[in-house]
Amino acid sequence: MTPSPSTALLTDRYELTMLDAGLHDGTAQRRCVFEVFGRRLPGERRFGVVAGTGRLLSLLRDFRFGDDELRFLRDNRVVDAETLTFLENYRFSGTISGYREGEVYFPGSPILTVEGTFAEAVILETLVLSVLNHDSAIATAAARMSVAAGDRPLAEMGSRRTGEQEAVAAARAAYIAGFTSTSNLEAGRRWGVPTMGTAAHAWTLLHDSEQAAFAAQIRAFGTDTTLLIDTYDIAEGVATAVRVAGTDLGGVRIDSGDLPSVAAQVRAQLDDLGATRTRITVTSDLDEYAIAALAASPVDAYGVGTSLATGSGSPTAGMVYKLVAREETGGGWRSVAKTSTDKGSRGGWKSAYREVRRGVATREIVVVSDPDESGPAERDGCRRLQTTLVEGGEVNSTFEGPAGVTAARAHHAHVREELPVRALALSRSDPALETIYLSA
Amino acid sequence: MTPSPSTALLTDRYELTMLDAGLHDGTAQRRCVFEVFGRRLPGERRFGVVAGTGRLLSLLRDFRFGDDELRFLRDNRVVDAETLTFLENYRFSGTISGYREGEVYFPGSPILTVEGTFAEAVILETLVLSVLNHDSAIATAAARMSVAAGDRPLAEMGSRRTGEQEAVAAARAAYIAGFTSTSNLEAGRRWGVPTMGTAAHAWTLLHDSEQAAFAAQIRAFGTDTTLLIDTYDIAEGVATAVRVAGTDLGGVRIDSGDLPSVAAQVRAQLDDLGATRTRITVTSDLDEYAIAALAASPVDAYGVGTSLATGSGSPTAGMVYKLVAREETGGGWRSVAKTSTDKGSRGGWKSAYREVRRGVATREIVVVSDPDESGPAERDGCRRLQTTLVEGGEVNSTFEGPAGVTAARAHHAHVREELPVRALALSRSDPALETIYLSA
Repeated sequence: MTPSPSTALLTDRYELTMLDAGLHDGTAQRRCVFEVFGRRLPGERRFGVVAGTGRLLSLLRDFRFGDDELRFLRDNRVVDAETLTFLENYRFSGTISGYREGEVYFPGSPILTVEGTFAEAVILETLVLSVLNHDSAIATAAARMSVAAGDRPLAEMGSRRTGEQEAVAAARAAYIAGFTSTSNLEAGRRWGVPTMGTAAHAWTLLHDSEQAAFAAQIRAFGTDTTLLIDTYDIAEGVATAVRVAGTDLGGVRIDSGDLPSVAAQVRAQLDDLGATRTRITVTSDLDEYAIAALAASPVDAYGVGTSLATGSGSPTAGMVYKLVAREETGGGWRSVAKTSTDKGSRGGWKSAYREVRRGVATREIVVVSDPDESGPAERDGCRRLQTTLVEGGEVNSTFEGPAGVTAARAHHAHVREELPVRALALSRSDPALETIYLSA
Repeated sequence: MTPSPSTALLTDRYELTMLDAGLHDGTAQRRCVFEVFGRRLPGERRFGVVAGTGRLLSLLRDFRFGDDELRFLRDNRVVDAETLTFLENYRFSGTISGYREGEVYFPGSPILTVEGTFAEAVILETLVLSVLNHDSAIATAAARMSVAAGDRPLAEMGSRRTGEQEAVAAARAAYIAGFTSTSNLEAGRRWGVPTMGTAAHAWTLLHDSEQAAFAAQIRAFGTDTTLLIDTYDIAEGVATAVRVAGTDLGGVRIDSGDLPSVAAQVRAQLDDLGATRTRITVTSDLDEYAIAALAASPVDAYGVGTSLATGSGSPTAGMVYKLVAREETGGGWRSVAKTSTDKGSRGGWKSAYREVRRGVATREIVVVSDPDESGPAERDGCRRLQTTLVEGGEVNSTFEGPAGVTAARAHHAHVREELPVRALALSRSDPALETIYLSA
């Protein structure tokens, strides 16, 4: 069966089971507040990056139960007839607010807040978490690579190392967090991410000689192309490249070897041959640490594959979607939270602010209240972190599509500038900002 | 822009750039053999599990360049007009053979072999690797969890921890590798994987008391349901569960705490209360090691989330797609391989066999030849590992859809039985079988 355009079954069965039971006993109509937050940052990093929000909003538009979905639920007796009728008419009519895409976050940051009836809000849990946990994990790793790369261009090329749709999302998240481009064409088509790429080793192996392969590539694309020089012998590859292309050769790419020493050798050889403006791109198993180790090397651009697409050791952000407040039986609100063990979380509606002193972020302030008395809209010296994404069921379309990606990338660059210097170190540590909780 | 049903742009730009240049110089028409293999097993495990093949075959059917795809490529000048015409008419017309889905594999196993012109075969690299690297990584991790769980049911519930589409693929791969069911409804609809799930903590928190929540759940689903007992206090939760449901309560689920001790306490309490047949399911941050550590505990079923969906530390299988042979300029075949560095690979067409002695697998035998003189169809005491998946562009539909998943799951169970006992240990080690190469 082919993938459905509906996103409604990208859902854990227990969401629909709870809905079913809640329609039976009437609790499904209680007004509820669910909150997305991370108990800690992935990989003991110093800051996290929110990504996926714009993608989520578009997927929410397709969260409808059509004939295929309803038939599956009926045939497999997942829910009863009354619930099927509810789902057939399902349309989220509540409110969603949250951190802007590209924003940085810390443990406890209320990244997304979903308000609606239990029925309409609970069934969004799986889709919301799938998108935010994946995309934020990639963006969080990508931001560190971007910090390490400094002003040098940084290309995402991890599509072959992750699921085929996740690859598109990863390219998008990396671009938001500071990458320059991607190899993934669908990310270009769907999200406007600039695409790049020239040739693989297969291109050289296809030809009778490396020289023939280079000459054909230059005939097709001109001398301002990048030649992959490490199929046979790197020194010979460089010599052949310059012989064929001349000293105006745009670039060479190195995909293997001990990169600091190889890059230095290649630079020296290019300079000796007069190709002083030929750029060097390196792409071999890079991660943020390898990029940082190349900072003093004569490298002009980086390409990152596996470690980007897999979140550099932390492929998921570990965010959860928790009920934090609900309507009381007799009206009014009750803050709720699981209390049994170490997984304890904090109930109540939360307003979030970043305290910024002389242009430097100092604290994450979370004000806890009831939904009907939510905290002040403004706080002195603080930036309000939440914005309305969906109101009365209507998606704010300014966050969607390629325009949303462009805005998220700009927002991330802006808020990263605000971070204290200690936030930019690569070693494992505590979060760079402390999260403090206040009562409204 | 919404996802396209076409899979053609789930492709790295350099594939199309090489195609473009190859159409210019005529090399794109050379017959080629590309091979998918892993240089090593993910996470120093003892065997790998091939998964994704059936999914890949369906995605190949949709690998067509439609108006949207062509417009993007034209507007962004990715390729020239001649190449656009080629892509407009693109349809893979070659042959693909490979390991059956569910088969185990070792370093160097020729998991997939794609034969066709350079033009038609090179542009499949990204899609092929995305699918096989993701799904095989999940299946390889899942098989170890399945070994550790023994006869106890094992549910996949990792959808909230990975991308929303990869979650469906992960549920499918886990089922092939021995899991019993999934929480993911779309995996049920699309692939026929059995689905499961009852309630989350939000269900209990929604109600005025744990007792009210349990009573409502039992009214909706009967006493043979599973109650989540760790929202407030586990001992009180168990007492309340049995008080409300009676001693015929189907099961309880524990999602936090030190599981060996908690499971023992809960079992003792249930037995004391007379609920001796009530099953215990545990779901808190399990991986293959935690499952193994619970082997002697009174646990009846496991649910695994994060570690399954992220490949338990190895989220990608690290397979590559390499040109291993091509047509010579004057006819005949040439074996080719990158030779510069440590990334060296082995050229030539490969036939793969598993040597099995008295029912136990002993070696992986790879016979290297030219494509027109490929190895013997049979070898004494060996099982041929490759089968034809696509012939003359026609997909063998028996490997697709839910039927393909069922067959892959059965095949995996069968071939896992053949593995030597040392293959089933969880510690990091060398591959359980050595791969040896022979000339035809």
